Amino acid sequence: MKLSEIASIIGAEFQGSDIEIIGMNTLKDAKKNELSFVSNAKYVKDIKETNAAAVIVSEDVKNEVPSDSLALVVANPYWSMAILSKYFAPVIEDENLPVAIIGKGSKVSAKAEIANGAVIGENCTILAHVYVGTEAVIGDNTILYPSVTVYRDCKIGNECIIHANSVIGSDGFGFATNNMGEHKKIYQNGNVVVEDDVEIGSNTSIDRAVFGATLIKKGTRIDNLVQIGHNCEIGEYSVMVSQSGLAGSTKLGRNVVMGGQAAAAGHLEVAPFSTFAARSGITSSIKEPGKTYAGFPLMGHRQWLKLQAKLAKLVK
Amino acid sequence: MKLSEIASIIGAEFQGSDIEIIGMNTLKDAKKNELSFVSNAKYVKDIKETNAAAVIVSEDVKNEVPSDSLALVVANPYWSMAILSKYFAPVIEDENLPVAIIGKGSKVSAKAEIANGAVIGENCTILAHVYVGTEAVIGDNTILYPSVTVYRDCKIGNECIIHANSVIGSDGFGFATNNMGEHKKIYQNGNVVVEDDVEIGSNTSIDRAVFGATLIKKGTRIDNLVQIGHNCEIGEYSVMVSQSGLAGSTKLGRNVVMGGQAAAAGHLEVAPFSTFAARSGITSSIKEPGKTYAGFPLMGHRQWLKLQAKLAKLVK
Amino acid sequence: MKLSEIASIIGAEFQGSDIEIIGMNTLKDAKKNELSFVSNAKYVKDIKETNAAAVIVSEDVKNEVPSDSLALVVANPYWSMAILSKYFAPVIEDENLPVAIIGKGSKVSAKAEIANGAVIGENCTILAHVYVGTEAVIGDNTILYPSVTVYRDCKIGNECIIHANSVIGSDGFGFATNNMGEHKKIYQNGNVVVEDDVEIGSNTSIDRAVFGATLIKKGTRIDNLVQIGHNCEIGEYSVMVSQSGLAGSTKLGRNVVMGGQAAAAGHLEVAPFSTFAARSGITSSIKEPGKTYAGFPLMGHRQWLKLQAKLAKLVK
Repeated sequence: MKLSEIASIIGAEFQGSDIEIIGMNTLKDAKKNELSFVSNAKYVKDIKETNAAAVIVSEDVKNEVPSDSLALVVANPYWSMAILSKYFAPVIEDENLPVAIIGKGSKVSAKAEIANGAVIGENCTILAHVYVGTEAVIGDNTILYPSVTVYRDCKIGNECIIHANSVIGSDGFGFATNNMGEHKKIYQNGNVVVEDDVEIGSNTSIDRAVFGATLIKKGTRIDNLVQIGHNCEIGEYSVMVSQSGLAGSTKLGRNVVMGGQAAAAGHLEVAPFSTFAARSGITSSIKEPGKTYAGFPLMGHRQWLKLQAKLAKLVK
Repeated sequence: MKLSEIASIIGAEFQGSDIEIIGMNTLKDAKKNELSFVSNAKYVKDIKETNAAAVIVSEDVKNEVPSDSLALVVANPYWSMAILSKYFAPVIEDENLPVAIIGKGSKVSAKAEIANGAVIGENCTILAHVYVGTEAVIGDNTILYPSVTVYRDCKIGNECIIHANSVIGSDGFGFATNNMGEHKKIYQNGNVVVEDDVEIGSNTSIDRAVFGATLIKKGTRIDNLVQIGHNCEIGEYSVMVSQSGLAGSTKLGRNVVMGGQAAAAGHLEVAPFSTFAARSGITSSIKEPGKTYAGFPLMGHRQWLKLQAKLAKLVK
Repeated sequence: MKLSEIASIIGAEFQGSDIEIIGMNTLKDAKKNELSFVSNAKYVKDIKETNAAAVIVSEDVKNEVPSDSLALVVANPYWSMAILSKYFAPVIEDENLPVAIIGKGSKVSAKAEIANGAVIGENCTILAHVYVGTEAVIGDNTILYPSVTVYRDCKIGNECIIHANSVIGSDGFGFATNNMGEHKKIYQNGNVVVEDDVEIGSNTSIDRAVFGATLIKKGTRIDNLVQIGHNCEIGEYSVMVSQSGLAGSTKLGRNVVMGGQAAAAGHLEVAPFSTFAARSGITSSIKEPGKTYAGFPLMGHRQWLKLQAKLAKLVK
């Protein structure tokens, strides 16, 4: 898509030489032929370093855009980005791609649907009503139980087990809101990458990234009815117990344990070997590794026990 | 079904002229050829105004029934209503209906099931393992991802996106209990109506109404693993974050935001533009619009922060 | 599998007469031709009474093993048990079994998958995209809505209703962890038994037992998005409201009510007719029947109301 066309869609002024834009990305990750945007004051500092061909900005920060990049000035950059995200969304199923490749020894139910362009490794078991989308890749020796859905472009490693009715790669919960309170979808053009030896329970949802990947590292164990938001990263050998959840862009180190119904807000970093008791609510990053927490707001597990004892006395 | 037959099934005395009853409904909504019931003291006041042909009541309130309606007196009206609800339940799939109508430009997977009597609009994408029930209606330009289930009679609007493995129209959680502690199912003979431009995440459940409709108004955004009980109403452009839930018959105004794992009890009304932090628990109606809340029990967000600061001091 | 072979796999010394071992089980339930293990100090007391052919133990408790049983001494008995569990796991689908038996009057969608060896009773309704696994048994007059998955060996009673996209018999969340923090799957070789007249909502997960059965007794009502861990037992006519959950091996008596988002830790026993308000968190067994509770930590419902009143005063 031509940069001039992009400017026209969002009503920004366009000057300079036109180029072909192949995608959108964050300021940090955007390449010379990609478009980026700034919609949050905390990312203004990243503008100067961007390699993006153009940056969608509001009037007040347009001068931060580097000289070899174009500032596209609009009233609501997040809304404009949402409008454009649709243009870069791949088709849901691409029938022009070749029929899926099924590895030696793999057993695929006649009632599963493997979209064109997908690749299934060797010795897999793909049961009835599974869906593997366009250009998705499944490793060797992996088991997909009935009605598992793997959206397009997602990658599942070797020796994985995904239980029935879980969903890998549904759209992250992203939208812009205008001053009328209306929402505009931000197309989620990233994917999900699940490394080797990961087991995922039933009825669990792992959302695809808006850009880049939601990443589940090797050896992790995820229980039933768990929510993992877009762009999260789960470290090796972590454990997420049933009904726990992570909001978008939160990163867990290795061997982190989230108890049942525990949850973390978005954009946090959690140190390795942290343990969260059932129903913990994490609202800020955890820097020191190896500690145990409880409660909402979160506190040390012993402090939480002490607090509960004090509260119990209040009503005796 | 004849009114005399109804009386006989529930062991009530029948007098007067017999008529054909075509359904059951609330006291307020029942028409001349429908049956109603009173099982809760707070609805006794509505009896006098009902247009129902007959009302199932206990002995003590039988005199409230208007003269042009018939009182069917039983020991446990709720239990009797449950017994009768089954007789008015439509068949799950009606094969006598004509084959589904698929609008121009719509792409329906050969591995989807579209029941007889359903209608799919134009330019829809219906992926593998989707189920659209008898007499369900899907609008134009709507996308149903794999393994979405839309039960019979439900309506989905235009420009909607429903992610994989979500369920629209499963039965509301309704049953009567007798004094032996046994439960009797109340058939959920209403439906779900999802208006235009609504996006629903993966593994979310929206229950059908017992009578009337569960209603999701236009522009609403619902995340993954969300629960919406029977007869709820979600206002325009509302947002329900992952793992949040609404018990039955709760009504949210427009642009209400429910944070992650937040929940509301049943039969509440929430004013427009209310925002609830993650894990809020709403147990009474909110009348003033535009405020922000947190906690369980619920309080103003600033008050909640103050309380947490006080509690933290207790254990320092 | 020969006992000598088992010893060899886990690197334990083998002495004495070799026998064929047909399965693994708990110390209490193991039969003369089964293998057991001790991985937790609280079960050491059960060793003396076991009938198991052999017991996997650590060095320090080997002398507790009865003389007619063999002690297999290893460094990490739980890890060794996990390794062996895989050898006793049945195949996911056994195509050598005869085609499924479908009872008189049952209607099975051509788009459902009923594996070989399964049995469907009479007058059932099995909708599209349902999966019934190898040797699973479905009773009479039962309805399975679209995309319900019943894993192999599970039993569903008569007059049951299971709503769309629920999963019966996914693997319990079981694994051993070594001192490198790596996890090893414990194969879940038990099943789920759902008795008669049980209704289960949509997107609910009930895990199969590691040994024996996860048991849902007759007349129980389970809502949407509920989690039931492996080896749980739910008493007759119990009620689990949406988004509630039980960790593994917890047993509820009859007519227990779990409110919305309420949860119980594992290995607890809850007395009959106990009621838990929404979001209760149960962390120890309840012995007295018929009481009402709230809060996390759990307390009597009236005490919880009193505590909330005191806390509200703190911030006035």
